[in-house]
Amino acid sequence: MSIAEQMLQVALEAKKASRTLATLSSGVKNELLKKMAAALEAGAETLIEENQKDVAAGQDKGLSAAMIDRLVLNEDRIKSMADGLREVAELPDPVGEITGMWRRPNGIQVGRMRIPLGVIGIIYESRPNVTADAAGLCLKSGNAVILRGGSEAIHSNTAIGKLLKQQLKAMGLPEAVLQVVTTTDRNAVTELLKLEEQIDLIIPRGGEGLIRFVAENSRIPVIKHYKGVCHTFVDSSADYDMAEKICINAKVQRPGVCNAMETLLIHKDIAETFVPRIVSALREKGVEVRGCPVTREFAAEIKPATDEDWAAEYLDLTLAVKVVDDLDEAIDHIHRYGSLHTEVIVTRDYGHSQRFLREVNSSVVMVNASSRFSDGHQMGLGAEIGISTTKLHSFGPMGLEDLTTRKFVVLGEGQIRS
Amino acid sequence: MSIAEQMLQVALEAKKASRTLATLSSGVKNELLKKMAAALEAGAETLIEENQKDVAAGQDKGLSAAMIDRLVLNEDRIKSMADGLREVAELPDPVGEITGMWRRPNGIQVGRMRIPLGVIGIIYESRPNVTADAAGLCLKSGNAVILRGGSEAIHSNTAIGKLLKQQLKAMGLPEAVLQVVTTTDRNAVTELLKLEEQIDLIIPRGGEGLIRFVAENSRIPVIKHYKGVCHTFVDSSADYDMAEKICINAKVQRPGVCNAMETLLIHKDIAETFVPRIVSALREKGVEVRGCPVTREFAAEIKPATDEDWAAEYLDLTLAVKVVDDLDEAIDHIHRYGSLHTEVIVTRDYGHSQRFLREVNSSVVMVNASSRFSDGHQMGLGAEIGISTTKLHSFGPMGLEDLTTRKFVVLGEGQIRS
Repeated sequence: MSIAEQMLQVALEAKKASRTLATLSSGVKNELLKKMAAALEAGAETLIEENQKDVAAGQDKGLSAAMIDRLVLNEDRIKSMADGLREVAELPDPVGEITGMWRRPNGIQVGRMRIPLGVIGIIYESRPNVTADAAGLCLKSGNAVILRGGSEAIHSNTAIGKLLKQQLKAMGLPEAVLQVVTTTDRNAVTELLKLEEQIDLIIPRGGEGLIRFVAENSRIPVIKHYKGVCHTFVDSSADYDMAEKICINAKVQRPGVCNAMETLLIHKDIAETFVPRIVSALREKGVEVRGCPVTREFAAEIKPATDEDWAAEYLDLTLAVKVVDDLDEAIDHIHRYGSLHTEVIVTRDYGHSQRFLREVNSSVVMVNASSRFSDGHQMGLGAEIGISTTKLHSFGPMGLEDLTTRKFVVLGEGQIRS
Repeated sequence: MSIAEQMLQVALEAKKASRTLATLSSGVKNELLKKMAAALEAGAETLIEENQKDVAAGQDKGLSAAMIDRLVLNEDRIKSMADGLREVAELPDPVGEITGMWRRPNGIQVGRMRIPLGVIGIIYESRPNVTADAAGLCLKSGNAVILRGGSEAIHSNTAIGKLLKQQLKAMGLPEAVLQVVTTTDRNAVTELLKLEEQIDLIIPRGGEGLIRFVAENSRIPVIKHYKGVCHTFVDSSADYDMAEKICINAKVQRPGVCNAMETLLIHKDIAETFVPRIVSALREKGVEVRGCPVTREFAAEIKPATDEDWAAEYLDLTLAVKVVDDLDEAIDHIHRYGSLHTEVIVTRDYGHSQRFLREVNSSVVMVNASSRFSDGHQMGLGAEIGISTTKLHSFGPMGLEDLTTRKFVVLGEGQIRS
């Protein structure tokens, strides 16, 4: 079979199996996830052996230490995958929920019922834990899942998939609801992305290059998340202690992730006091600060920021700082340079907090909290399948509910239209 | 300027203006829509004059009588456009609604707030009323709108757009929130469909050809609605009188629309009694019935149905009838041949009603009611911008709420992540 035929068969089987999965009770799905968790732990030795093959191959290919680290499976990481599945098992099942039911003048009742999307394709890189994490979320929300990881993790992903599929078989469930694409042929992705009749949604997880490739080549809807250029605006009325604490946390606590702060905006009325204070606190934590001319008036020791800095996602201990005239300029700057991810205002002004919440059109908008809370776990969605920075279907961190859609249900007593 | 440059300018202006629109109060938006309604009525004479140019050109080009009819504007139709705008003004404004707000263990409050999508492009054919209808729904939901109608209605669409835009100007609102593309160059559509950075959603309204063209050429998400192959399943426990009334209504009341019934499925246990009765009732109403072999055992006078009939959207007084063994076969048939539009079960069996509601994965699923109720107005959404038969973002008839998305809002008191 050609790669195109193989992928079509995978997708057709997934679509067929998804019908059975869509009607399973929460109890059965939860039992499945718990068995899968136990199987990962029981199979740890095999998983680590298979993972060693990937790690050795990666070292031969000269992958960076950071990439090798992302690739490694050990007892702790396997335990953490298993716990992830158990955690998803504990989450409420969105499928079947009726969100509103109303009665029309003619007596028909109309409501909306949550249903799975159908078949979800996950295209991802390096971290093998995505295999178990994504499978858990898709299955719990009643969706069949096709997993296509990177070739660098092929042995690990195949071994994880095998353990998970054994549990489907043991419970008499259709194994095609979970399929790991084991060919390392790069055309497999391109072929999968054409199957709009069988696959309902594609979620790419990885670097910007992967996401752009998937978005540009897919006929299937794609959840996109290019980058996180997150802003914190310290308003003139901000409590300085709170502002410092939030800024340091947003920049320093974990700089390499998408919800870390990349640009700090400071109201001009407090620049003289707050700029020297925050610049010094940041530099003490090892942050390289780059500033606009006004910022540098109050902190001459820092480098100037260029236009590229305002759009930069550093993912590192680097920060751009700009002094703005007022809330309007802050919002304009965010709309011009932001990535629709997460923006924060630190303020004591009620009116400003409300305007910021209403007018900033990013997927997460916060008052007086660190941007690091922009995460499915932290915001109470349970686990997170990804983050969407485009507005269709989902916007922001996506939990189980975002893997469903709603159909209309109508309950009549013989009504006809006149 | 080239067409590409013109379209980019239209889209950039729309995006800029959409920010102002997104923050308008419901009161201002409602006043705008009411003024637009009054302007259409006051300008009826001009509209009819301009429309006459389109009608004359259409007659010269030899358009069919049905197409000319769709094109015509008269006093009644103008009144009906105006009433449509007033009706949208009366609907609740979804923008700014907080759908749920919860508190996390660390004290932050997390909620989801409805916001406009941004900029919506409507690509449509012949009926000039779409210009006003779509503009009303997009503006009320806080979205800037780019309207691109067919060249056959260019004078009518331009005249309607001009009247509507005058009201924006009179109220001091940015005119770019409503733009009618007045070039009849066919490349305008292709160029618009590339502008994924500026336009958030494309809604095509027209025949299957138009929708396929838009879906295949768009980098922007598209709401798709190819066709309606709607089924009614008459279960063994159905009340015959109710079943007959519902079937006749679903097939005959307005056969040319997407929510009319195209295939009737009948449980084998009642075939001997119900098939002759319903076939005779349908034929009395002028319906051409085509049946499976078992159907024809009980109604020898009808033609045999071929495999093509099961997938046909007749949009006419023609119906395919199949006798099925049980509920499972009915559901399988719907999944195989249906278009995810609207399916109905007529039954007195509680268990069957629940299984049908749960297991049939179409956008509208009904018990004991005519499929003709599958419509935004009838189901209480107010007006309808379109129907989606794909599951992402919206599924089924789309009202104002479906022209919005939700962002997360987080209210803190200085919390940081540990």
